[in-house]
Amino acid sequence: MKVYFKKTKTNFKRTKMNDYGLNIWGDNNFIIENGKVCINKKSKPAILDIVKDIRNEGYRGPLLLRFPHLIKKQIEQIYSSFSKAKKEFDYKGNFSAVYPLKVNQYPGFVKNLVALGKPYNYGLEAGSKAELLLTMAYNNDGAPITVNGFKDKELINIGFIAAEMGHNITLTIEGLNELEAIIATAKERFAPKPNIGLRIRLHSTGSGIWAKSGGIYSKFGLTSTELIEAINMLKKANLLDHFTMIHFHIGSQITEIHPLKKALTEAGNIYAELRKMGANNLKAINLGGGLAIEYSQFKQTTSRNYTLNEYANDVVYLLKSIAGQKKEQEPDIFIESGRFISASHALLVAPVLELFSQDHTEEKLNLKKSNPPLITELYDLYNSIKPSNALEYLHDSIHHMESVLTLFDLGYVDLQDRSNAEVLVQLISKKAVVMLGSKNSTADLVKIQEEIKERYLVNFSMFQSLPDFWGLKQNFPIMPLDRLDIRPTLPACIWDITCDSDGEISYTEDANQLFLHDVDVEKEEYFLGFFLVGAYQEVLGMKHNLFTHPTEATIEITESGYEIKHLLESQSILDIMEDMDYDIYEIQDSLNERLEKSKLINETQKKQILGELYLFLNDNSYLKTIN
Amino acid sequence: MKVYFKKTKTNFKRTKMNDYGLNIWGDNNFIIENGKVCINKKSKPAILDIVKDIRNEGYRGPLLLRFPHLIKKQIEQIYSSFSKAKKEFDYKGNFSAVYPLKVNQYPGFVKNLVALGKPYNYGLEAGSKAELLLTMAYNNDGAPITVNGFKDKELINIGFIAAEMGHNITLTIEGLNELEAIIATAKERFAPKPNIGLRIRLHSTGSGIWAKSGGIYSKFGLTSTELIEAINMLKKANLLDHFTMIHFHIGSQITEIHPLKKALTEAGNIYAELRKMGANNLKAINLGGGLAIEYSQFKQTTSRNYTLNEYANDVVYLLKSIAGQKKEQEPDIFIESGRFISASHALLVAPVLELFSQDHTEEKLNLKKSNPPLITELYDLYNSIKPSNALEYLHDSIHHMESVLTLFDLGYVDLQDRSNAEVLVQLISKKAVVMLGSKNSTADLVKIQEEIKERYLVNFSMFQSLPDFWGLKQNFPIMPLDRLDIRPTLPACIWDITCDSDGEISYTEDANQLFLHDVDVEKEEYFLGFFLVGAYQEVLGMKHNLFTHPTEATIEITESGYEIKHLLESQSILDIMEDMDYDIYEIQDSLNERLEKSKLINETQKKQILGELYLFLNDNSYLKTIN
Repeated sequence: MKVYFKKTKTNFKRTKMNDYGLNIWGDNNFIIENGKVCINKKSKPAILDIVKDIRNEGYRGPLLLRFPHLIKKQIEQIYSSFSKAKKEFDYKGNFSAVYPLKVNQYPGFVKNLVALGKPYNYGLEAGSKAELLLTMAYNNDGAPITVNGFKDKELINIGFIAAEMGHNITLTIEGLNELEAIIATAKERFAPKPNIGLRIRLHSTGSGIWAKSGGIYSKFGLTSTELIEAINMLKKANLLDHFTMIHFHIGSQITEIHPLKKALTEAGNIYAELRKMGANNLKAINLGGGLAIEYSQFKQTTSRNYTLNEYANDVVYLLKSIAGQKKEQEPDIFIESGRFISASHALLVAPVLELFSQDHTEEKLNLKKSNPPLITELYDLYNSIKPSNALEYLHDSIHHMESVLTLFDLGYVDLQDRSNAEVLVQLISKKAVVMLGSKNSTADLVKIQEEIKERYLVNFSMFQSLPDFWGLKQNFPIMPLDRLDIRPTLPACIWDITCDSDGEISYTEDANQLFLHDVDVEKEEYFLGFFLVGAYQEVLGMKHNLFTHPTEATIEITESGYEIKHLLESQSILDIMEDMDYDIYEIQDSLNERLEKSKLINETQKKQILGELYLFLNDNSYLKTIN
Repeated sequence: MKVYFKKTKTNFKRTKMNDYGLNIWGDNNFIIENGKVCINKKSKPAILDIVKDIRNEGYRGPLLLRFPHLIKKQIEQIYSSFSKAKKEFDYKGNFSAVYPLKVNQYPGFVKNLVALGKPYNYGLEAGSKAELLLTMAYNNDGAPITVNGFKDKELINIGFIAAEMGHNITLTIEGLNELEAIIATAKERFAPKPNIGLRIRLHSTGSGIWAKSGGIYSKFGLTSTELIEAINMLKKANLLDHFTMIHFHIGSQITEIHPLKKALTEAGNIYAELRKMGANNLKAINLGGGLAIEYSQFKQTTSRNYTLNEYANDVVYLLKSIAGQKKEQEPDIFIESGRFISASHALLVAPVLELFSQDHTEEKLNLKKSNPPLITELYDLYNSIKPSNALEYLHDSIHHMESVLTLFDLGYVDLQDRSNAEVLVQLISKKAVVMLGSKNSTADLVKIQEEIKERYLVNFSMFQSLPDFWGLKQNFPIMPLDRLDIRPTLPACIWDITCDSDGEISYTEDANQLFLHDVDVEKEEYFLGFFLVGAYQEVLGMKHNLFTHPTEATIEITESGYEIKHLLESQSILDIMEDMDYDIYEIQDSLNERLEKSKLINETQKKQILGELYLFLNDNSYLKTIN
């Protein structure tokens, strides 16, 4: 059994962070009550209680919880902000929104979204054939469908079928070749036709890490010259009446409102100009997505500098001004916000499996009767360190450690000496850190603080559940589900269970350090919540080490409690193998044969093992019990 | 139909790059013959011929080709290098290797690997329960199995079962808690026991981007103090005889040999010290993985500074010296190279769908009778630009363009004026670039060169097929499969078919520019090969926009040609939906109902559409025909 030490690294002079930035990113969705994160809705249940209920059913490993009321909230906010803005500025155009499926295509999310969006005529956006077929099956009757992205003839055909089925669909073309294909398809197919949208390429660019999706070098859209060509092609094909929308997208997670205003001005003028060229049915400007959410749990790194109301007001006001100036009708407004709608609805909860500490105490010291000189010297430093010499002694000790390591590599000291040096240097460092406080931040001190960070091994795969952290260094708010009335004392670093050194969230910036609690996970459970993971993280999930989509459940909050719905366990190991196109019968046969052949065990034992193998193969792949 | 211009941007003064760095990364696996990339084996077939054969069967979209002879080659190289080194230094320890499944768990690779590794007793490494069960089903009898990564009791139990079945298995523990669990399990289970390995935490670190997996702050391994504790625990539990291996891993894709030497020295000393402490059955040092392959296709960015022979010689020589020095027996050597074995065996081939050019010609100019002054001025600049004023006129034109855009946003010029300005500025830029050559690389020139890059839209998903490019900016060699006897003239940028602006490979560094051919893809096919994608890229593949693992085939090269085996098509759209846990009957019913309800089409048309929908749902999700 790992010997357990009560650790309080109070020497870290850092901000008390008991709410884990909830006031920054939480949007009033969660509150802390009796030291637990609770859902700020009706009965205000503690998330931990929900998690325990599910675990009591035997589910282990990470859990993805979906909260439909948070989807509803986001949809309502979007429609009410634009409705208010329209009223305020007496805007004549309509407001419509579609949800881009690529952000989250999972049924546990999409089916809720569609049902909750019905009163608003909320639609769907598709970016591939598979997504388009999903929209055709699930979109609310009459609600808009838009289709972006590169299209082959087949996708265009499916778009026409959607129109023939009665869907209100707009195909946004990304290049003139697509328009050619649409014109050709229109000749071949039946009477109903989809609307046509043109993606415009703006000179304005967005801000933030996804900014390159806007602007002149972006992957998408038509230049002014191509727009004129497109209008001429549409006229010639007698399809100009089907051209109803221009579309632009200045980037995902737009952090500042200024570039959007610039883009809107440009787009508004293009809208007016195209109408003047005879595009009489051009009635809508589609702003694409980009509405940001706040992911930061630290004040220093907040990213969004505008509110939804400001966004809506700016859009409506600007488009009204341009329409007025250009003497054109006020355009209908379309938006395709996905992240804003879906991010907050999902929360990943994962248990801490173990704390890995580099924390040595004097008990670990095992000095010999006769020690090498350097060890004796380290021991002296440890005993005589005081505030006035702390920095000097600290440097000396690190220098000695390096010498000991060299001596070890050269065979002059043994493993016990090396261990003693490790322990002594750490003990000296700990004293020095206390004596020096946070005012001295030399490179050595920083190194030491890194070293004494506590490593929390958490039962999840970062590659599967937080791919944007791996790919884009996108941080997500992380907090423990309970003990929030106790000050967390350990600067933490999160490890996932993959065999990959990238599977780590380390908080390297001094000011943005995650503190967690000092718990003995052999005696008490400790769960971390990873919030705002509802956008992109599911479909981008990678199967590193064959860890797959976690067990999920939908949670409905009621007046008196909550209901756990649609519990869906993470794939079994056999399912995972089958997905990779293994023949699972071959696998089972091979295991059985090898077991049969074994001369190391008897028949009774073989029978037991056969049963065990069956259970393991049909269980999911995440870790279960460590202790 | 897109009007097609013959473009030759010969003004780009860049190295002729007809072999696409094949001499840097190719390892003699491929040769160029008659302008085509051919497989340098027996009949030397052109890859393009293989691709066309498969496409003639009706498969479209990206193709993943696997070459078992390249797996064989890598296995042979590893064993022969170490065998030579052992002979050279008269080394007494054995050499063994295992393949870490996490690098590629797909059956198309693994089954070949196991069959080809049989003569060498080549084993497998597992990092999770799912992977361990795969090794138990597929590993060659008697070949070693190692298990790394964090372990729960269940995984440890499976490890014991493997031993009971007769597998030669070693469980490498990552922390003392795991050792506790192993000791507890050993008491509960039957006589056969797995070997125990200890992961050691070294002070030495690797180099290269994955370096943090080694070193003192790494996610894995025991400190000296913990090693001593582990030995004491093993002694007490009477299990010290089962401790047979120490393990370390200084990082994946090690680019320099120096850190490995340092690590080996440290590990060798630890090995000797542990033996002196009574670990008499400790016989092996496992170096983990890290053997790099060369991914670069540009001389300037090559990354590996050692050869496999050098690696093997250094390992054998160093371990021999330390064993001699410490008077201990020469340890058995284990390696766990995955990338080195698997990277070269797979090649992704994807067709170019379209070329997107910002290339305007004079024909696009549509001047009015009376133009705004700025347009007139731009036209004058265009006509009077000469080498002596080129830079000045270029700057003027860009300044004018900015003014035109402002005027457009303010409503003073119209879309046609804006288009004329766009065209004129580009025409001026093109002249200026030619006149100035490459000696002038002002910020403006760089911008312009970026702008006149040709965008190649390629039928693949970067997120699915090159995830390490997204996550780690890992470049892979890319080259066209034919036309290699024609000088490529267009500086290229690769777009994938996802709706994501990150789905782009842009070569921003001047010296490392990919040049591709100027092809009219409406008339002729043009395929790009993405090489060395056999390691990690499959299992890390993301389903962005629901694009899934591409169609794959295994290619056996024969004396007279080749055989295409195990053709496995990319998932159908219904399969993808089912994987996400959609009820596919619900989807089909919903589509049928909506079709039935439609009043826009007649019954005959509905019947046709029903058939079309069926085909689309059962087809894979990639693009098919653009033109």
